[in-house]
Amino acid sequence: MRAVVFDRVGDPAEVLQVREVDRPEPGRGEVLVRMVASPVNPSDLMYIRGEYGIRPECPATPGFEGVGVVEASGGGLLGRFRKGKRVAVVNDRRGNWGEYAVTTARQVIPVPADIPDAQAATFFVNPATALALTRHVLNVAPGQWLAQSAAAGALGTMIIRLGRKYGFRTVNVVRHDRQVDELKKRGADVVLVDGTDLPERIRHATGGGAPFAIDPVGGETGTRILEGLAPGGRLVVFGSLSGRPIAVDPRPLIARDLRIENFWLGRWAKQQRVLTMLKLFKTIRSLAREGVLSTERVEEFPMDRVTDAVRRAAEPGAGKVLLRIVGR
Amino acid sequence: MRAVVFDRVGDPAEVLQVREVDRPEPGRGEVLVRMVASPVNPSDLMYIRGEYGIRPECPATPGFEGVGVVEASGGGLLGRFRKGKRVAVVNDRRGNWGEYAVTTARQVIPVPADIPDAQAATFFVNPATALALTRHVLNVAPGQWLAQSAAAGALGTMIIRLGRKYGFRTVNVVRHDRQVDELKKRGADVVLVDGTDLPERIRHATGGGAPFAIDPVGGETGTRILEGLAPGGRLVVFGSLSGRPIAVDPRPLIARDLRIENFWLGRWAKQQRVLTMLKLFKTIRSLAREGVLSTERVEEFPMDRVTDAVRRAAEPGAGKVLLRIVGR
Repeated sequence: MRAVVFDRVGDPAEVLQVREVDRPEPGRGEVLVRMVASPVNPSDLMYIRGEYGIRPECPATPGFEGVGVVEASGGGLLGRFRKGKRVAVVNDRRGNWGEYAVTTARQVIPVPADIPDAQAATFFVNPATALALTRHVLNVAPGQWLAQSAAAGALGTMIIRLGRKYGFRTVNVVRHDRQVDELKKRGADVVLVDGTDLPERIRHATGGGAPFAIDPVGGETGTRILEGLAPGGRLVVFGSLSGRPIAVDPRPLIARDLRIENFWLGRWAKQQRVLTMLKLFKTIRSLAREGVLSTERVEEFPMDRVTDAVRRAAEPGAGKVLLRIVGR
Repeated sequence: MRAVVFDRVGDPAEVLQVREVDRPEPGRGEVLVRMVASPVNPSDLMYIRGEYGIRPECPATPGFEGVGVVEASGGGLLGRFRKGKRVAVVNDRRGNWGEYAVTTARQVIPVPADIPDAQAATFFVNPATALALTRHVLNVAPGQWLAQSAAAGALGTMIIRLGRKYGFRTVNVVRHDRQVDELKKRGADVVLVDGTDLPERIRHATGGGAPFAIDPVGGETGTRILEGLAPGGRLVVFGSLSGRPIAVDPRPLIARDLRIENFWLGRWAKQQRVLTMLKLFKTIRSLAREGVLSTERVEEFPMDRVTDAVRRAAEPGAGKVLLRIVGR
């Protein structure tokens, strides 16, 4: 079969190749999935760079999520039950960017026919992160403020819509003036363009600071989001788009009683009960249908053009880049 | 009465004066204490600089703790009961660096005659911080590792002795080679001199990293202490001796599941039940007698030489500087 492979970690635009590899064999409790499409997520790019929590064993194939059809089961009740089904594929080891992928039967989630490929392919990472952060980890109550950076991205948009759905208010940090109206149209309560006085503007907009903040950027943006917290506030760091550290001044941290936590979907999901995850999938399915957890502005590339795809995904303002593996 | 006063926040060596001021009057539930001695703690210096969680209303008198004799009560059962007693004086508002101080009756703790002035004057801030951090906030279990910076200071020494007492193990970060043997003699399990490879040395010494760390320094030292944590580890930041920020790289924070918390004794004490605090005082009293929570290397200055005293307190390697207010 053909798959995207890298032989060493590094810049995704340089190290990725598409070549012939052995088709993976499903073991007991696993399934073989004929892949249809898979998105290029920031976590995939970090993985290829060797900067992710899981280190690749090269040669490796990337791709943590996607959509496909279960072709065979390696044994086990659930796998047999899933055979022939169109499924969202969560894959935290062997990678989805190939004609076939193997993952555990528990990590393939049947998706109804009325959810299109692009939504099914992005069914898990962003929607589960958005729900886990706001409804489980922080549990932001109606009327409370949540500050977020990278608010114009696919995940940021989902967070804004979850705010409208569940009643919490969002302070959204973006990089460009032109994004302000765009996000307000999507339901953002406050949109602020990043800059040195961002902490004061967050505090002003929220009447003293946001009790909760989430940050996938780090660097100066992460530092300012932290400083925009209300006394007793919590910052959850869940990415490093800037590749730079957050500067934590101990004095306001102590005086204003701030905490810095982290979030990694793969670990969080493993810590949840099976029932919690099944409920989460159900919620995602219904919110995807409602358009709350849907991915907008999808840009498709055939798998053979993976280098163009990862380049595009790294550009600011790009939509969600999707690798089309098999034409339908 | 004579007292140390500052009319504006700034460098303690520049803004402090000793002058005649009105004697404070105790209100209901408060007591008037004739002060005997009071230490110069890092928190006092931060307060004078305007960098502490409580902002001074100038003209203000510093001094968060000390020892004295209760001279009068402003009314209330506890105050009358304390009259004439020699007490450790906790004062988070009006300041102990004067011939008389006023605080609430609840914040004066009778100390037995066999505890000398220097120990009674330093009865609260360091011992309570050491106990609260290790036994309440982090609750370090026997055999577990705790990493700390500024380990050669008065508080650091108490933490080392608490480790011996309760069975947890300490990794102690110091600035100079000559401090290594000194701290080992006091019971330190591991002593490391700060440097760029500190995180690796902490991880090596502890077999993978310390699950707990406390840091009153910040800056590069704080950054390295954070990076020396074990997966799932917690760093509690409780000071800013370097005046510089900790650089928090989101990637290891997420990959190794690290958390950054803060600790401020004044706030923590207010959140505890009265009974918890009474037990804490009892524990401090008994551990002070045992020599576990005693302050070594005290350097006394008369109150009139307060500028020399605060200068000395800011020097690396100084002992605990004590202002002698009334000779005995």
